[in-house]
Order: sequence, then C-alpha cells, then structure tokens
Amino acid sequence: MNQLPKGEDVRKADHPIEKIFLQRWSPRAMSGEPISEQEMLTLFEAARWAPSTYNEQEWRFLYARRETPHWLAFFDLLVERNQAWCAKAALLSVIVAHKVFESNKKPNPVHAFDSGLAYENLALQGAAMGLVVHAMQGFDFEGARKSLAVPDDYAVCAMFAAGRPGNPGDLPAETREREKPSLRKPVREIICEGSFK
Amino acid sequence: MNQLPKGEDVRKADHPIEKIFLQRWSPRAMSGEPISEQEMLTLFEAARWAPSTYNEQEWRFLYARRETPHWLAFFDLLVERNQAWCAKAALLSVIVAHKVFESNKKPNPVHAFDSGLAYENLALQGAAMGLVVHAMQGFDFEGARKSLAVPDDYAVCAMFAAGRPGNPGDLPAETREREKPSLRKPVREIICEGSFK
Repeated sequence: MNQLPKGEDVRKADHPIEKIFLQRWSPRAMSGEPISEQEMLTLFEAARWAPSTYNEQEWRFLYARRETPHWLAFFDLLVERNQAWCAKAALLSVIVAHKVFESNKKPNPVHAFDSGLAYENLALQGAAMGLVVHAMQGFDFEGARKSLAVPDDYAVCAMFAAGRPGNPGDLPAETREREKPSLRKPVREIICEGSFK
Repeated sequence: MNQLPKGEDVRKADHPIEKIFLQRWSPRAMSGEPISEQEMLTLFEAARWAPSTYNEQEWRFLYARRETPHWLAFFDLLVERNQAWCAKAALLSVIVAHKVFESNKKPNPVHAFDSGLAYENLALQGAAMGLVVHAMQGFDFEGARKSLAVPDDYAVCAMFAAGRPGNPGDLPAETREREKPSLRKPVREIICEGSFK
C-alpha cells in the first residue's frame, strides 16, 4: 500500500499540540483498493464518540462502498472535479443531521455543527490508520436529499470519500499540484478577545 | 490540580479506535483556577489545523478569560443552568463562522459543519491536556450577535467553556448526577448503507 506523506513533515505548529492534528490532511490520490468492513466500522466508531448537545447524536452517515449497487447513487451526486479523484475511493458517504430534537421535535440549533464534530473524529481516525479521508461540499445537496430519501427534518451537511492512498501522479494536473498538506492562517487571526473585530 | 475521570475507564469501544476519542468527555466541574495564555493558545492551535472547504478556515473564536473586563458580556449570554457551572470556567468562547466565501461572497454551505471540525480538534486537545472543555447551545444566540458585534455574514454556531477540573461535589445536584462520561448508540444506528432508512 502507498504511504501518505505525513502532514507533520511539512507543517509546524506554533504551539505544542498533539501530533494527530498535523498528521491529518486531505489527500485526493487513492489506489482503488477496497477498505475492509472492519476498517470502515472503525472510522464510524470514532465518529460515534463525539460530543453533541444533550448527547443527541443527531448525525447519520449514509454510505456506499464501491463494489456495491449503492455506489452510483452516491458517485453521481459529486461535481465533475470531485468525480475525477473519487472514482478511486473505497467509500463515499453523505452526512446528514437531524434538525430537531428526538424528544420534543424542537429545532436543534447546532445540528450541523455537532455533525462536524463527529466527522472530525472520523477524519482523525482515518489519518491514524494511514487512510485517505476527505470531506467535500462539491456535490448536489438537493439531489442527495431526493436520491437518498433524506427526510425533511434532516439536513444534508457534507459528503466525504475514504480509501487507500494512491499515486499522486495519477491525479489530473490541477489536483496533482494541490496534493500536499495545506498550511493555515496564524492562530491570532482566528481568535478575538471580546467582541468581533 | 484535580484529575478528571478518564472516559476510557467507563467506556468501551466496539471497534478499535484511538484512545483520545474515549478519553474526551464533557465534564462541568471546574476549579475556578485560570489557564495560562500558553494553554489557551494551544487549544486554539489545535482548532487551527482542522480541514475546511477550500481551506477557507471560516471559523472565528471570540473569547473572554474570567479575570478580564470581557467576561461578563460572555457569561451573561448563558442560560441559568449553564451559568451555574460556568462561573468556575477560566475561558468562555463564542464560535462564529463566515457564511460566505472570502473570495467571491457566495454562500458557503458547510460553514457551521466546518466550524464543528475546528471545535472538535480543540476539545480533543483539551482532553489530552487534562482540561475541561465543554460545548453548549444553551445561550442567547441573538444576544451574542448583538453584544459581541457579530456581523450579519457570520453565523453564531455554539459556545464553549474551558477550565481546570474541579470537585464534582460542588456542582448543583442536577448536574452532579450527570458528571460522568456518557455512552453512545451502537454504531449500526448511526450508519446506513444506501438510502436513508
């Protein structure tokens, strides 16, 4: 299996954080090999332990593995530039979130935010396993609702692809150039003491 | 400093995940001690390295430390049952997200989701440091916008409190009973092969 470049080889934290956060990045090159049922369940298991308001666990992961009849319904949702590299993914998933609380059906104002927490656990777990895990918003949100029968009280939040690392040389030229761990704004630009400035 | 009960002492994963996901939980008991500037920056540094669409980094963390003039504006946003335990927090933060892309001002459909990714990194980093980090939706979202001057093109996503672990016996009776790592639905209940069922 191909080895992913390690994020921490090209990134430097300005403050001492756990290694996993630098290690995780968002590659696109995948090999087309499957991942096992056990590996897939381990990814979702990590998501499962995220926090949520009132422990609501309002996330739901719809998924398709490539060698199954479900694949095409997921793959067809992607914009063309994502289809170009996701063709070699082992797993595609649409993340949806219950917009109301189970108990009283009142609006849950953090349903998309909470689903992000669950996905980040999954992405970090994938990085620890040496797998490619890459989230996307380049897909047909309304199409996902229709073709995957997502009920009205669930929000379509995002998609992600997962698979085994591949050869970056096989990517289309445009994405090949971006196939490296990205950098970030300085931390002082994302925090603000007191009011918004 | 008080030691937090470890999540992994009472939780068992059904599939083999990294220890940090079980270790992290959402305590409420804090000691009232401050956290250092360096510790705070380390929490935000972890958030900084989360993925986001086009590496947009659309999250922004407004914050107040307890011994500062900013504190009351944040504390006053909380509902009473959160004020009861957040009075001993060292740090309160309101997480906001840019709803449009910087480059073209078009709507970003994953702004709240992405901000969740950043927060989860921060929460996991806090767990690794033995700190309490606890997200909340029990606060005045519109009040936050007004009193913290959040622009219209930013969404108010969530708040969180952070601080040093305290004595659970000091919590009000209702929250004291909940002061333990919570469990989760089985993974099969949060995943679905193919369409929503």
